[in-house]
Amino acid sequence: MLWRLDGVPGAAGIALVSYAAAPMRILILGGDGYLGWPTALRFSARGHEVSVVDNFSRRRWHKEHGTASLTPIGELEQRIEAWCEVSGDRIRSYVGAVEDGDFLEEVVAETRPEAVVHYGEQPSAPYSMLSRERAVETQHTNVIGNLNLLFSIRDQVPDCHLVKLGTMGEYGQPNIDIEEGYIEIEHKGRRDTLPFPKLPGSLYHCSKVHDSTNIHFACRTWGLRATDLNQGVVYGVETEETAGDDRLINRFDYDELFGTVLNRFCVQAVIGHPLTVYGSGGQTRGFLNIRDTLQCVELAVANPADRGEFRVYNQFTEQFSVMELAQLVKQAAEHLGYSVEIQHVENPRVEKEEHYYNATHTKLLDLGLEPTLLGEELVASIIHAIERHKAHVIESAIDPRTRWNPAKSPAGQA
Amino acid sequence: MLWRLDGVPGAAGIALVSYAAAPMRILILGGDGYLGWPTALRFSARGHEVSVVDNFSRRRWHKEHGTASLTPIGELEQRIEAWCEVSGDRIRSYVGAVEDGDFLEEVVAETRPEAVVHYGEQPSAPYSMLSRERAVETQHTNVIGNLNLLFSIRDQVPDCHLVKLGTMGEYGQPNIDIEEGYIEIEHKGRRDTLPFPKLPGSLYHCSKVHDSTNIHFACRTWGLRATDLNQGVVYGVETEETAGDDRLINRFDYDELFGTVLNRFCVQAVIGHPLTVYGSGGQTRGFLNIRDTLQCVELAVANPADRGEFRVYNQFTEQFSVMELAQLVKQAAEHLGYSVEIQHVENPRVEKEEHYYNATHTKLLDLGLEPTLLGEELVASIIHAIERHKAHVIESAIDPRTRWNPAKSPAGQA
Repeated sequence: MLWRLDGVPGAAGIALVSYAAAPMRILILGGDGYLGWPTALRFSARGHEVSVVDNFSRRRWHKEHGTASLTPIGELEQRIEAWCEVSGDRIRSYVGAVEDGDFLEEVVAETRPEAVVHYGEQPSAPYSMLSRERAVETQHTNVIGNLNLLFSIRDQVPDCHLVKLGTMGEYGQPNIDIEEGYIEIEHKGRRDTLPFPKLPGSLYHCSKVHDSTNIHFACRTWGLRATDLNQGVVYGVETEETAGDDRLINRFDYDELFGTVLNRFCVQAVIGHPLTVYGSGGQTRGFLNIRDTLQCVELAVANPADRGEFRVYNQFTEQFSVMELAQLVKQAAEHLGYSVEIQHVENPRVEKEEHYYNATHTKLLDLGLEPTLLGEELVASIIHAIERHKAHVIESAIDPRTRWNPAKSPAGQA
Repeated sequence: MLWRLDGVPGAAGIALVSYAAAPMRILILGGDGYLGWPTALRFSARGHEVSVVDNFSRRRWHKEHGTASLTPIGELEQRIEAWCEVSGDRIRSYVGAVEDGDFLEEVVAETRPEAVVHYGEQPSAPYSMLSRERAVETQHTNVIGNLNLLFSIRDQVPDCHLVKLGTMGEYGQPNIDIEEGYIEIEHKGRRDTLPFPKLPGSLYHCSKVHDSTNIHFACRTWGLRATDLNQGVVYGVETEETAGDDRLINRFDYDELFGTVLNRFCVQAVIGHPLTVYGSGGQTRGFLNIRDTLQCVELAVANPADRGEFRVYNQFTEQFSVMELAQLVKQAAEHLGYSVEIQHVENPRVEKEEHYYNATHTKLLDLGLEPTLLGEELVASIIHAIERHKAHVIESAIDPRTRWNPAKSPAGQA
């Protein structure tokens, strides 16, 4: 099992990549999820000793909303068993909630990870805006889980590298270029490099800002080492390891709560539902393929932050507006024989629809990231993956019902 | 009952103050506390309809640590009864936790406040650094309580003005001037005014940063109106209303967890304990008298933010280094006949001891704040207030035992 990425020269022409030559103990929180499961397989395939933690809250949230993954995923233990058959490698699993600090501390003490990849959070912006109860659940799960993890690392494995999934949505839509975590500010004749100001766009995004604040504090105060991956919107279904065997298939969400925009558009195209663009569709964001998520996480783990360092990467490969994506999906699907309509619906979110957006994202490229760029062919491959399961699409779960400001909604009370 | 502050010209020479001429319904969260109780009396004395919420967690935390307020405060109901006898005005009270969203929503629905003054949080930096459990308690109490409040205001009284107690400690010690909540940044030829970057100095301070992020989001998204008071370190014992009757006396903390630095120095001088300066004492912060806290809160309530506006004031009147305060207390106490020694102890915190510090604080002055400046006479008055109760000082509770980084402490394990 070798790392493929050896010797990749960085932007300055110097080989910047350092290698985890020896197998590492890697703990993945949220290891049953859309990113957690393929990440676990990837590190296991590379010969690392992988443990996963999950409490299946994503499956529970789906049940509560009458939805499910489009792809028929097995139970975690079945998937792990299948992976063991396929690869000969065993992944350890721990079932429990990161909000339970004693549980998490025991897991960390037992697994003694050299790197923790933390995906174990409530990941949906609309879910966090559903109600007070869901907002509180989101911030409690995310902030307290992450805080527990910081203490467990401090007290059990202080040299461990925390690789934390953040989001580009922490920055919001400022009228200046977005930098990678920090910005040098000159002010009244003095100068400092400070955390980049944040304008999060939902209570979920707020929770990720809170996490970043706590992790930064832990690095400054306890000398922990952490990398925050401010990820763009992910699309795609399969990765190298999940595609090999039906029992290893990855989850795929398309519903209003957990589906991301490109995945949703592809499902809509396949079932003959108009592509629903929220508002004008001028909203611009960073995007990346799920295969690149794995590359980025591997690069982050292979290049640990220093003790006391809070490193921040903007993890995406391309910027698109929502309309650009809708047009790309329409074109790709029409070439496959589908008839596709684009429909503008009232924007359920409170956000700028026409705005400046330019976010720096060079640090992961410097480490050797080789982007998988989005084009018609890639959209076609997502569409083909969806076609296998189209009979299971729950159409009523797609349209947005969660409004950011209920008082402004036709369905609202005010 | 009239407002005293009418017609005060602002810095630009224009009368900037607008008046709450009519009595308002004001809800005070944390109304049994060091700031909450005198604030409740002040607004009641001004003729407003005041309700308070408290769950007595401050009293509970003291019990758990074997400490107590130096001043012998009565139970909340006794204090309210005494105030009613003295003033003829009744304050309504609700006993419960702001973390309980249903409880808080009922209180807000019943009292229908026009302004909520939110002090109902765990207020101690050292407390938040005691252990994982205390850190989690702090962030849960503060973040979830505040989030519940935002939803209650949105759903019950969307026009209500939230006046939230923040802290200057949210900003930390940047190498540039600290502005009031926002900073205009010019970057790569573009410009925006964005939230001032934060470098909070404890997990308590982090929780206040989280609150500010959530409140700002609620203002942008739901059109709430809010004022965040980033307060400096408060000192002093009594206010106009609490000083009138022993039954109305305010709480006064001097222990390592809840005592603030100047109050602690005054107690140390009175009991003949050296003034314990953490490290070199070059740490500089903003300070204000508790009487000025009340002025500031009155000004904030009388000048509500606009709908959708998140207003931020830096609430302090003077900057001092810790050594300057120690020297001032030594001088004042020696003039009263005490013999005072200053002792440098190992700094239990992780913070810069020599640093640039210059924080803007003009907005409250522009509204009419008349600062009570710190001098020997004022220190003498605090010392006299302490002398009445000196027999009750628990000396063992003063010295710092809570270390920001246990691994670096002699008492630590690493």
